[in-house]
Amino acid sequence: MARTKIKDILRSEEHGYPVTVKGWVRSFRNNQFIALNDGSSLNNLQIVIDLNTNEEIVKNITNGASLSINGTVVTSQGKGQKVEVKADTVEILGTCDGEKFPLQLKNRPSLEYLREIAHLRFRTNTFGAVFRVRHSLAFAIHQFFNDRGFVYLHTPIVTASDAEGAGEMFRVTTLPFDNPPRNEDGSINFTEDFFGRATNLTVSGQLEGELGATAFGEVYTFGPTFRAENSNTARHLAEFWMIEPEVAFNDLNDNADLAEEFIRYVIKYALEHNREDLEFLAQRLIDEEKQKPQNERSEMGLIEKLEFVINNKFERVTYTEAIDILLNSPAYKKKKFQYDVSWGIDMQSEHERYLVEKHFKKPVVVTDYPKDIKAFYMRQNDDGKTVAAMDILAPGIGEIVGGSQREERLDKLEQRMNEMHIPTEEMYWYLDTRRFGTVPHAGFGLGFERLVLFVTGMTNIRDVIPFPRTPKNAEF
Amino acid sequence: MARTKIKDILRSEEHGYPVTVKGWVRSFRNNQFIALNDGSSLNNLQIVIDLNTNEEIVKNITNGASLSINGTVVTSQGKGQKVEVKADTVEILGTCDGEKFPLQLKNRPSLEYLREIAHLRFRTNTFGAVFRVRHSLAFAIHQFFNDRGFVYLHTPIVTASDAEGAGEMFRVTTLPFDNPPRNEDGSINFTEDFFGRATNLTVSGQLEGELGATAFGEVYTFGPTFRAENSNTARHLAEFWMIEPEVAFNDLNDNADLAEEFIRYVIKYALEHNREDLEFLAQRLIDEEKQKPQNERSEMGLIEKLEFVINNKFERVTYTEAIDILLNSPAYKKKKFQYDVSWGIDMQSEHERYLVEKHFKKPVVVTDYPKDIKAFYMRQNDDGKTVAAMDILAPGIGEIVGGSQREERLDKLEQRMNEMHIPTEEMYWYLDTRRFGTVPHAGFGLGFERLVLFVTGMTNIRDVIPFPRTPKNAEF
Repeated sequence: MARTKIKDILRSEEHGYPVTVKGWVRSFRNNQFIALNDGSSLNNLQIVIDLNTNEEIVKNITNGASLSINGTVVTSQGKGQKVEVKADTVEILGTCDGEKFPLQLKNRPSLEYLREIAHLRFRTNTFGAVFRVRHSLAFAIHQFFNDRGFVYLHTPIVTASDAEGAGEMFRVTTLPFDNPPRNEDGSINFTEDFFGRATNLTVSGQLEGELGATAFGEVYTFGPTFRAENSNTARHLAEFWMIEPEVAFNDLNDNADLAEEFIRYVIKYALEHNREDLEFLAQRLIDEEKQKPQNERSEMGLIEKLEFVINNKFERVTYTEAIDILLNSPAYKKKKFQYDVSWGIDMQSEHERYLVEKHFKKPVVVTDYPKDIKAFYMRQNDDGKTVAAMDILAPGIGEIVGGSQREERLDKLEQRMNEMHIPTEEMYWYLDTRRFGTVPHAGFGLGFERLVLFVTGMTNIRDVIPFPRTPKNAEF
Repeated sequence: MARTKIKDILRSEEHGYPVTVKGWVRSFRNNQFIALNDGSSLNNLQIVIDLNTNEEIVKNITNGASLSINGTVVTSQGKGQKVEVKADTVEILGTCDGEKFPLQLKNRPSLEYLREIAHLRFRTNTFGAVFRVRHSLAFAIHQFFNDRGFVYLHTPIVTASDAEGAGEMFRVTTLPFDNPPRNEDGSINFTEDFFGRATNLTVSGQLEGELGATAFGEVYTFGPTFRAENSNTARHLAEFWMIEPEVAFNDLNDNADLAEEFIRYVIKYALEHNREDLEFLAQRLIDEEKQKPQNERSEMGLIEKLEFVINNKFERVTYTEAIDILLNSPAYKKKKFQYDVSWGIDMQSEHERYLVEKHFKKPVVVTDYPKDIKAFYMRQNDDGKTVAAMDILAPGIGEIVGGSQREERLDKLEQRMNEMHIPTEEMYWYLDTRRFGTVPHAGFGLGFERLVLFVTGMTNIRDVIPFPRTPKNAEF
C-alpha cells in the first residue's frame, strides 16, 4: 500500500481507514506508544502497537530508528491528538543505536552543538520548523513574482565582472598553484585559465538583471551570491541567497512600494501555510529569551511581530531626516553611540537599530543617501549631493533590503563611472542599455537568509541555511 | 497614470478606455503606425499616432527607442490585431541610433551573432519567447514540488567534498598565485585558504539532498552546478542549473514514475501558459529545418512533439534489453555505429539516439546499468553485476535525467566505497544517514537547460541560458 503522509492523517477528520505510514521514531514509551515523525509536519503521529509484538522488534524501536507501519487510523483515547494509528504490523527499516546517535547523546542539544551535526539537525523540531518555513518563503517569492508577470532570470554565478565594488570576491580557477602560466612581465597569464580570463563568484546579479528588465520589463533573480569577507558574525555568510527584482519604468517610490508589498506577501504566506511551525518557533524564542535580562527581550512575540509588519505601513524617511532624528536623540545627547553621527556618515548598526527599534518601532525605508557612500549606478538627485537609494531596516535584523532607482542617463552614468574609476569600456554591455532606448528603472536586493531570520525568530544566520559557509568552515 | 502591460491590453476584449503604455519600438511605418513591445508578450501593440505629431518626436521614433504613450484603446481597423491604441501624447524616453544599434545592423541576425550580443538578444522575438518559456518551466518546477509537499533545499555551492567523481571541478580560493602559503613539504597549505581547506564549486547537490530527504521525506534542489570540462559542444555548459529531487521510501520504480510525472507536468504547464511563444518557436524550428535535407528534419512539429510526450507513457527497458536491441539492430549489423556495442559499455550518444529516435520514437527510461560504469552510491542489485540506476533519454537531446535508488545498506555502501577508493572517514556525514535509521530512498537529477532545449526546440544550449559560461567565455 502507498504510504500516507503524517501531515495528511493529522489534518483529516476521518478515521477507521487502513494506512501505511513510514518515518522516524521520536519517542517510545510503555513499550506501546510510538511518536512517529516523517518530516511532513512538526507534529508526530501516535502509533499504538500490540503488547504482544515480537520482542526483537520492540527492542529495536529506539529514538531515531526508521519504521514502516501498517494499521488503522482510529480516534485517539489519549490527550494531545484527535487520531492515532493502531498498528497491525511493524517493520524496522533501519535501527538506531542510542549509544552512538548524536541527537540522543545530549538531552537538550544546543544550537551550537546542532550546527556541528548540521547533517542531522533537520530531524529536530526546531530545524524541521525553520527549514519548512524557509521552503514556504522561497515558494512564496516565486509565486509573488510569477503572479505579477516577472520573468525569473538566472544571472551568471561565475563572472569576469569585478567593477561593482560590492565586496571582496572568491576566485574561480582551474590554473595550478604550482607553476601557473605567466606573462613575460611575470604576472599570471589568465588567458590560460578555463574561461580565458580571471573569473570570480558573483556578488550580485543586478547588472545582468538590468539587461533583462530593459527587455522584459520586469525580472527577478533568486540565486546564490558570495562575499569573501572575513566576518565571523551572526549576520554574515560567505555564501547566501539573494532575491533581486529589477523593473523598467519604476522610480524610487514605486521601488519602495514593491519591496513593501513583497515583504508583506511572503510573511503572510508563511503565516497561512506554516502556522504550527511558527507557533513552535515563537515559543522557542520565548524560552531562549528567558535567559536574557528583561530589557533585552523582544517587546512583541514572534507571531505578533509578523502580524504587525503585515498590517502597518513601513515608515519612510530620507537619510537627511534620519540623521536629524539621530542628532536629536537622547542616545546621541547622552553619548551612548560608539560611532559619531553627522551628515555623510555610513550609518552603523547601532544607528540603524536606534531608528528601527527605539524611535519608529517598525520597519523603516531610508531613502536618498549621500552619493559618496553609494554605488556608481544609483540615480543622481538634482541636489548634486544625494542619490535615489533606499535601504529597508527591520527590527532585530538591520538592513534587509538595499536598492535604488538606477541612473538611466548615459552622460551622468559615464561621468560617475569615470569619477569612481570604473572602466567604462569593459562595461560596454551595461552602458548599451543606456545607449539604445534607455528607460527609467529601479530594483533592489533582499538577502534571503536575513528574511528567514526575521520570520523564524532565529538569531544566528548559520541556523537558517542548511549548510553554512563561513570563514574556515565548508563542512558537509 | 500607472502603466498597463501590453499583454493585458491584447488579452482583454474591452475597448474605449484610456491607458498609459511604455515599451520599445519594434517597427514604425507610414509615420503613423508603431509596433510597441514591452516584453510582457511576444505580440506587439499597434499605436496609431496623429499625423500632426511634432516632427522632432516623429524623427526619434526609431527601432529600439523607448516610448511612453498616453492614449485610448480602440478596436483596430487594420488586420492582425483586435485592438490598438490611439495616441494622445507620445514621449520619447530614450532614443536609439539605428546606425549603432546592433539589432538594427543586420537584417536577420543569426543565433551565433545574437550570442555575441547576449545583453541585447532578449529584445528579439526568438529570445523573448525562449526566456519566457524558461521562466514558466522554472515556476512549474517549484509548483510541482510544492504541491506535493517537497521541501526546497538550498544545498551548498562551495564544497570541500570531492568524492563524487561526477566530473572535473573549479577551484574556489582566496589564496594568491604569487607565493601561496606552503607546507613544509612544499605542497600548498590550504588551511590558510578562506575556508581552511581546499574548496570547489559543486557538481551536484545530491549527497546533501539525501541528508534532507532522510528528515523531511521529500526534498528537491534547484540550483547552479558546475563542470570544468573542456567540452565545446552544443550540449555542454560549464555552469548550468540542475533540479535534484530526493525521496525517502521510494524505490527505482517510484523514482521513474516521479520523473515521468514531473516532466509531463512542466511541459503541460508551458503549453498552457506560453502557447503563443511555443507556436512562434515551432515556426522558427520549421524555418531552420528548411535548410536541412528532408531526412534530417524532425518528424513531428514542436507542439506535436510536446503533446506526444504528455500523452504517452515513456518506454522502460533495462540496460541489458537496450544492449540486445542495439545488437539486433540493422544499424549494428550494417556497422553504422562508430563505437562498438557489448554488454558493459557506457552507451555513446549514437546508441542512445538510435534507441530513442529510431527504435522507440519516444522518451525511454533505461534502468539497471552495469555497476562498473555508475557511481558508488547506487543501490546494488541482487545479480551482483548491476545497480538500480536509471537514465531518461529524450529525442533530440539525449540524456535528460540521471538517477537511481540509493544504496541504503551501510555494509554494502562501505564495501563499494572501499572498492572505489572513496574515503569513508571524510564522508562520515553521508554514512551517518545509513547508521541512524536508514531508509530506502531514490532520486534523480535533471539538467534544466536540456529541458528548456527540449521544450523550446532550440538546438544549442548556449541559446537557452541568459549568459552561457563555456571554455574561454565568461562574457557579461
